[in-house]
Amino acid sequence: MKKVKFLTGVFFLFLQAVIAQPQKTLNLMPIPQKLNIKEGKLYIDSTLRLAIHGSPAHRIYPAATRFLRRLDEQTILWFKQNQVSSSDNDLKSLLQIHVEKPGLIRLKEDESYQLEVNENRITIKAATDIGAMYGLETLLQLLEADEKGFYFPQVSIQDAPRFPWRGLMIDVVRHWIPYEVIIRNIDAMLAVKMNVLHLHLTDDQGFRVESKVHPKLHEKGSNGQYFTQEQLRDIVKYAADRGIRVVPEFDMPGHASSWFPGYPEYASAKGTYQIETKYSHFEPAPTMDPTNESLYPFLDTFIQEMTNIFPDEYIHIGGDENRGQQWDANPKIQEFKKKHNLHSNMELQTWFNGRLQKILAKYGKKMMGWDEILEPGISKDIMIHSWRGKHSLTEAAKMGYPVIISSGYYVDLLFDAKDYYLNEPLEEGHDLTPEQLANVYGGESAMWGEIVSAETIDSRAWPSTAAIAERLWSPREIRDVKDMYRRLEITSNRLEFLGLNHNKNYEVMLKRLTNGADITALKTFVDVVEPMKELSRRKQGITYYTYTPLTMVVDVAKPDSKVAREFTWLVEDFLQKPTIEFGNKIKAYYSMWIENHSRLQETMKVAPAIREIEPVSANLARLSLIGSELVDYILAKSAGKLKYKNRIDYDKADDLADEMRFMVKPRGNVEFIKIIDSTKKLLTYAVD
Amino acid sequence: MKKVKFLTGVFFLFLQAVIAQPQKTLNLMPIPQKLNIKEGKLYIDSTLRLAIHGSPAHRIYPAATRFLRRLDEQTILWFKQNQVSSSDNDLKSLLQIHVEKPGLIRLKEDESYQLEVNENRITIKAATDIGAMYGLETLLQLLEADEKGFYFPQVSIQDAPRFPWRGLMIDVVRHWIPYEVIIRNIDAMLAVKMNVLHLHLTDDQGFRVESKVHPKLHEKGSNGQYFTQEQLRDIVKYAADRGIRVVPEFDMPGHASSWFPGYPEYASAKGTYQIETKYSHFEPAPTMDPTNESLYPFLDTFIQEMTNIFPDEYIHIGGDENRGQQWDANPKIQEFKKKHNLHSNMELQTWFNGRLQKILAKYGKKMMGWDEILEPGISKDIMIHSWRGKHSLTEAAKMGYPVIISSGYYVDLLFDAKDYYLNEPLEEGHDLTPEQLANVYGGESAMWGEIVSAETIDSRAWPSTAAIAERLWSPREIRDVKDMYRRLEITSNRLEFLGLNHNKNYEVMLKRLTNGADITALKTFVDVVEPMKELSRRKQGITYYTYTPLTMVVDVAKPDSKVAREFTWLVEDFLQKPTIEFGNKIKAYYSMWIENHSRLQETMKVAPAIREIEPVSANLARLSLIGSELVDYILAKSAGKLKYKNRIDYDKADDLADEMRFMVKPRGNVEFIKIIDSTKKLLTYAVD
Repeated sequence: MKKVKFLTGVFFLFLQAVIAQPQKTLNLMPIPQKLNIKEGKLYIDSTLRLAIHGSPAHRIYPAATRFLRRLDEQTILWFKQNQVSSSDNDLKSLLQIHVEKPGLIRLKEDESYQLEVNENRITIKAATDIGAMYGLETLLQLLEADEKGFYFPQVSIQDAPRFPWRGLMIDVVRHWIPYEVIIRNIDAMLAVKMNVLHLHLTDDQGFRVESKVHPKLHEKGSNGQYFTQEQLRDIVKYAADRGIRVVPEFDMPGHASSWFPGYPEYASAKGTYQIETKYSHFEPAPTMDPTNESLYPFLDTFIQEMTNIFPDEYIHIGGDENRGQQWDANPKIQEFKKKHNLHSNMELQTWFNGRLQKILAKYGKKMMGWDEILEPGISKDIMIHSWRGKHSLTEAAKMGYPVIISSGYYVDLLFDAKDYYLNEPLEEGHDLTPEQLANVYGGESAMWGEIVSAETIDSRAWPSTAAIAERLWSPREIRDVKDMYRRLEITSNRLEFLGLNHNKNYEVMLKRLTNGADITALKTFVDVVEPMKELSRRKQGITYYTYTPLTMVVDVAKPDSKVAREFTWLVEDFLQKPTIEFGNKIKAYYSMWIENHSRLQETMKVAPAIREIEPVSANLARLSLIGSELVDYILAKSAGKLKYKNRIDYDKADDLADEMRFMVKPRGNVEFIKIIDSTKKLLTYAVD
Repeated sequence: MKKVKFLTGVFFLFLQAVIAQPQKTLNLMPIPQKLNIKEGKLYIDSTLRLAIHGSPAHRIYPAATRFLRRLDEQTILWFKQNQVSSSDNDLKSLLQIHVEKPGLIRLKEDESYQLEVNENRITIKAATDIGAMYGLETLLQLLEADEKGFYFPQVSIQDAPRFPWRGLMIDVVRHWIPYEVIIRNIDAMLAVKMNVLHLHLTDDQGFRVESKVHPKLHEKGSNGQYFTQEQLRDIVKYAADRGIRVVPEFDMPGHASSWFPGYPEYASAKGTYQIETKYSHFEPAPTMDPTNESLYPFLDTFIQEMTNIFPDEYIHIGGDENRGQQWDANPKIQEFKKKHNLHSNMELQTWFNGRLQKILAKYGKKMMGWDEILEPGISKDIMIHSWRGKHSLTEAAKMGYPVIISSGYYVDLLFDAKDYYLNEPLEEGHDLTPEQLANVYGGESAMWGEIVSAETIDSRAWPSTAAIAERLWSPREIRDVKDMYRRLEITSNRLEFLGLNHNKNYEVMLKRLTNGADITALKTFVDVVEPMKELSRRKQGITYYTYTPLTMVVDVAKPDSKVAREFTWLVEDFLQKPTIEFGNKIKAYYSMWIENHSRLQETMKVAPAIREIEPVSANLARLSLIGSELVDYILAKSAGKLKYKNRIDYDKADDLADEMRFMVKPRGNVEFIKIIDSTKKLLTYAVD
């Protein structure tokens, strides 16, 4: 009897696991540390109210009000509660929030929370209001609906981040990224529980900060495109209200051209300077002169001014890619190096960093920099920002430096979300001790700005940054790519409801390309292609300037095409199980691309701006013809209906493979490698 | 011989007129005063440069730079010219701009320009840089493309506005409309040659201006949602750089609740005050106490502060809808009226206006107010803003007051673009003398904010405001509705390229309504319905609060449905000429709506927020069934194939008409009256 009971129990658990399987992650992103899904549903109606108890920071009240409005926008239940305040503490309210203490906007603040949805109550408990805000975000993500109405599934969640530093870096220099874009990205960050906004504020192409102590910095260094101090304070406050720190970056001593139109005296070569309109190949690269003693009081007053705007303990000083050409060409600097026993430009830069660090320390700030600054002699309380590979991360951690990683998280390189998602910060089989591991603070999605505009930036940063957010928040072993994509699509929609533009601008930009003519054929094409990845677009022998139009097909095409991805999965399924059903689905795609080509040619007649993609579309059509025949061939083969004389011989297979290899070369900066790769797999399978 | 020649000439002219007919307005909006289209095309390439001559204000250089960038974004020709400056004056450049003098941002500034596109040169000549900017906007609208590339048609244009005051009023109070929305609307305004941005900045629901002299105004009157002075200065500068004046409105002495949370002492009744969360029915309406002498120094310092932000000569003091309830209830005010021989509340308000006007005059400002302020005793140098009907416009003009009109231009009432377009400011058969006519300065599109959010406002204001812009700019006799709609659609696209969101948010909002489920059926439905017009939505017995969600189907549905309009035109064509071709097209629409209903019901299962439209969709499907049969009936009848026994008798026709009459009643705040009306026409035709 006892045994039977036990077995029933086991069977029941097993059954539950099977039933729960497809939903085990619900629609959450990032996935919580512990998630227990129960059976019931808690339906909600217009009487929903929330109450807040304990000692939160004030920010929880506007945050709770925003929660109510967003939930109401989604459900249209017309909640009666308006602005939430400290007088909202009715223990009978459906949603109870308990906060122990005010959260501080600082590294390693307690961000944990518990969320319980029971049959008649929702409870969020958190040490700080920041954790409570995360609980509210999770609750919004739990919302579902059925024929009876809107409900929250009953769950029990215990959650806390894996890493305390989960950032998004936005380069606002290379192309000007205005205030409202930053604001909407902050909203998006909170929605996926990111907590550091890193603003890359100065670089060769612009000085994007108003300085009142050295006004020629922004006046002569920005073409009028900069954040005012009021805007920066607003950004800092807006972020802090959402639990987000703001780390400003002032890149020194290289990447510094924009300092010199106003203050040429601090450059390492005499002359007049202008902000750069190109992104590289300007030589010698303007660099600060570390041997000029008057540079340090100048930087001192600037840093002091900035510390009045940015309260975070860290200031990022860049420090990357100093090519030292101006230093090498300046005899005074050479002499200085000899005199101070500095054997390389790197040692000179470390010397400069030491001076800089003293200034930062004077104002209570810690230094942070790209991994080049990790050189013998640099002091231990700096934060290393690893970008040149994971090796520098583990190296820094071993040496005892706190470190975060952006290597593998450069979203401007337009890789697939899965590539960022699977980019585990720690090297496989690393040998870090627990103590060294604690030096790894997290990472940042890095949105560099060379080939983005305010119109396109969201579509480059998102939704892949949400996948990075999950990598940095959720347990290491969460790595199911298909489930990630399922949730990413839902998350992507939610982020648009919040105000991001990563999908919204797609059709508008297509219309601009067709001069208002019908976009159907162009959309079918752009849906399947992807922009060239990595830096390859800029390596086509064409010089991009800051004013080059970013409205081309390649700028509209999204990284990580959903159509290409689903086609790839379909071909995988077919090769696992070559059924007529799968075959027909594949052939439907191919037919679509074959037919689309002539329609797209028609559009091109009135849309000169898209003519550059003609050969790509022609190749796609040709590939589709090949692919379609391969599917027929495989179907016939697996049905045993293939006649010997129709077999593809090795010569023909080689010819087809060659043809496909040729198609890989992108034109118009877009590619359809995934479709080629899948078709190659069909070929391999066919001739096997 | 001579006669033949003459006839050939006439024939040639006739032929030219016929050929030119479909293109006689090109894609321009507003249509210029004089437009002469020539035969050739001027193709452009990457060498296009512009040169500026004469004595323009500085604003022409950034404006010309923006022109280049927009043209390059559209054509992707990669122009080599970057920032345009005064050194760009090469007489060999393709585009030559000549400006006589700097434009001033003031009423009645010279806004005229001439634009010539010849076979090898584009020339813009203007008295001021403002006219030159308009010339550049017109040039952008001329851009076309064919198989040879992008070109401008050769034209000769002489242009100037019909009215000097062409405004857009935005109510930023009832719902908070943030900075970036204002900025993108300014861009749109210039694109259609509007020149006054009227900001409705204070009202019962909020005080949206930072005041440093009376900080409790915005601190206690705005829930933190207000423009900082820096933002307002930015808006004024951004507008001035685009030739646009900014007229601020501070509504007094009524619509004034938001002044009193901070300064209850200036209200006409003792007590504590909060900003209103409803839009009407709050009684007594909080009103300033004009008998309180300390009110005037308070207003004086406030006005002084505002004059430092807003340089325009006009300040709008509202003055509308003072219901006087607090005045009637206050014995002190009653006594004051007696003592000063003021026989009505209107006379008291006029007395108050007189005091206010003195304060404005002290700071060199003229007063402007809604037409209620036009009362005996009010001084002649005020500007009357007519909203209660055209009668008040002509009345004011006759009395010698300068006047503008918004009556008939309330875009928040969601009428069709054609209704605004055909709303001629001057009454039919008015008897104004030329001198009185000169008092009519123009008009303003009025975007009131009770039922819009930052997400929906563009879709309510645009593109219909472009139709209003044409009414106020172009000759009175330009009134071709179909051609207007053709150009409006092109203009609408262009405005989205510039950054407006009136189409972009449509699908996002539909997705929010379906919780991310497929939106196809919902879109088919929402495409054809329209939100209830006028104030009817708010008269459904439901109270709207400032925090009521504005994400319902009615908020997504667009005024002036394109599908409904095209269906209406199709039915008109069919009734003119009942061919099978037209009939089938109509039946295709009806079939779509019949089939859509069950699909939409499927969507509703997971989308509780759209269930309110179920009966509307059911009615549309039922109507479509009736309509489809009527088309068959008419086709059979006109083919002479109708059998007598199948004829629709009067009883049946009455039943059908009754059924349709019942369908007119909106549910879920949306309606499809145009489809009902067209179907009724089919019925009338069928039984005739």
